[in-house]
Amino acid sequence: MNKAIVLTGITTTGTPHLGNYVGAIRPAIEHSRDADVQPYYFLADYHALIKCRDPERVRQSSLEIAATWLALGLDTENAVFYRQSDVPEIAELTWLLTCVTAKGLMNRAHAYKAAVQANEEAGESDPDKGVTMGLFNYPILMAADILMFNASKVPVGKDQVQHIEMARDIGQRFNHLYGEHFVLPEAVVGEETAVLLGMDGRKMSKSYDNTIPLFEPENRLRKLIMKIKTNSLQPGEPKDPDTCTLFCIYRAFATPEEVAQVRQRYAEGIAWGEMKQFLFEYLNEHLKAPRERYVALLESPEQIEKALQDGAQRARAVAAPFVQRLRASVGIRPLVG
Amino acid sequence: MNKAIVLTGITTTGTPHLGNYVGAIRPAIEHSRDADVQPYYFLADYHALIKCRDPERVRQSSLEIAATWLALGLDTENAVFYRQSDVPEIAELTWLLTCVTAKGLMNRAHAYKAAVQANEEAGESDPDKGVTMGLFNYPILMAADILMFNASKVPVGKDQVQHIEMARDIGQRFNHLYGEHFVLPEAVVGEETAVLLGMDGRKMSKSYDNTIPLFEPENRLRKLIMKIKTNSLQPGEPKDPDTCTLFCIYRAFATPEEVAQVRQRYAEGIAWGEMKQFLFEYLNEHLKAPRERYVALLESPEQIEKALQDGAQRARAVAAPFVQRLRASVGIRPLVG
Repeated sequence: MNKAIVLTGITTTGTPHLGNYVGAIRPAIEHSRDADVQPYYFLADYHALIKCRDPERVRQSSLEIAATWLALGLDTENAVFYRQSDVPEIAELTWLLTCVTAKGLMNRAHAYKAAVQANEEAGESDPDKGVTMGLFNYPILMAADILMFNASKVPVGKDQVQHIEMARDIGQRFNHLYGEHFVLPEAVVGEETAVLLGMDGRKMSKSYDNTIPLFEPENRLRKLIMKIKTNSLQPGEPKDPDTCTLFCIYRAFATPEEVAQVRQRYAEGIAWGEMKQFLFEYLNEHLKAPRERYVALLESPEQIEKALQDGAQRARAVAAPFVQRLRASVGIRPLVG
Repeated sequence: MNKAIVLTGITTTGTPHLGNYVGAIRPAIEHSRDADVQPYYFLADYHALIKCRDPERVRQSSLEIAATWLALGLDTENAVFYRQSDVPEIAELTWLLTCVTAKGLMNRAHAYKAAVQANEEAGESDPDKGVTMGLFNYPILMAADILMFNASKVPVGKDQVQHIEMARDIGQRFNHLYGEHFVLPEAVVGEETAVLLGMDGRKMSKSYDNTIPLFEPENRLRKLIMKIKTNSLQPGEPKDPDTCTLFCIYRAFATPEEVAQVRQRYAEGIAWGEMKQFLFEYLNEHLKAPRERYVALLESPEQIEKALQDGAQRARAVAAPFVQRLRASVGIRPLVG
């Protein structure tokens, strides 16, 4: 009964890539099998609408992300796995929180400030040009996601720490005004080793367009790995594994013994072509079985939908009575009794 | 089937007063009996949370407003009469609209600008001091209220015209991005004669604390009318009816013939005491029957709750399928089919 509640949302705007897998999906799936943890994992489709106005992409991304998590063995007996928009109580809570959130707090949000700065640097006379209220309100929606389930731990990247602090601020303000309803969440910042490098040597990220999708068909995966940027050192010349994207990716999958062996091969001057082929074969071996499950799942979306509906039902079993309590605390309650 | 859809929301923060009755409630109740009109009237409790953090007041006001409208003979067979918060689809639509609303539009909202100006005039270094996101987002919630039911006419005071224009802007933007889903509403500005003066001679308004509650007990009503501010003209001296609060209130209730007679009495120099007693008796006679129904309704809140639940059911019968269509249009839809 005293399980730690851990919550993670995945914005449904893209196709899961190796960086997502190593940084977020794999640890989350491990958590899902931990009996001491009660995970809430959700497809953040309301968040997706902030940056994506392509309905087909939002839908396709939801499908791919859900299929990915299930294919990788998410334990949906333990984890509550749901689509954010299937829990209408989240939109209700968002409004309750909106009413207690200071505008000044939102003015200070990094994402908003970055947009304003970009406008100023571009010489725009309107600092809010192109800024939607979705972007501006985003931390409140995120606070609702977290506070709804009284999540105590929220695994995030460094860039998201501020949002967790804002969720704490907003929850605290509500507690102060209307009674102690919310647990205040803590950010759990992932370790640096979890950051994967992308095709061009920068952090693997959708925004850099340097990603390797997790479940590419074998021949596509091979092609992408062959294209990973390396330096011009020749076969036989010793190479530095710690600045190498190939090694970085390998290390994220291999055992410490395997990593030590390959480190030795770098010292001995392994050829880039050989290392690429080796990495491809290693990854392909690793991803084969879940990829098959992924492809099968994509072919039976009703199975995915069923899993999401089951998750939404479990989420709402918590959210619905909680929102009733919160509504009552602000004065929204039936006139009888 | 081609009834004009008219929508009015009543913020649940106060007790209905004579000014509300004359300016909004009475015309709305007349509309409710007009077979050519499909009215949606709602208790705007989500709006109430923006300015009121007293849960008991929000609850009590909901009770009193609902009892008032029913006591005055609202035709709930025709009008859809509901509590905003009983239609969770409104919160969902609010988020969908939030994502397409430009922040620049909200920056220009009168209520927000007035708050900023007040801060600046008070020498505050933070122009957003005390401004909540509820206040800042308020026009989006109002757009959701209106667009949800494709209301074509929204009766409003002059100060609310901008909000209807914003609802048009937001609806238009959504239509542009995701297809023609929304009817764009038009503001219907009430006539000036509908403005009632309050105890102190200014417009009767909760914010001036100069109101006469609609269903005060007889002795309280008498006391309040006796306290209405008049000038120091003596009995026998001719008086100007058009700058007189007593006359203003009388005119709002009486027939043209009755008004003409009293106008004549002013010219003849009616004493303030006599006019006050006359007004009290006239109003009291007018309000007696609905006041009795009001008191009876307050004693059976289950009857009021039942009416609101019936209304919510009718509102959701429209809102739920519409929100499904809107969700689908932005990419939020089941993975199957």
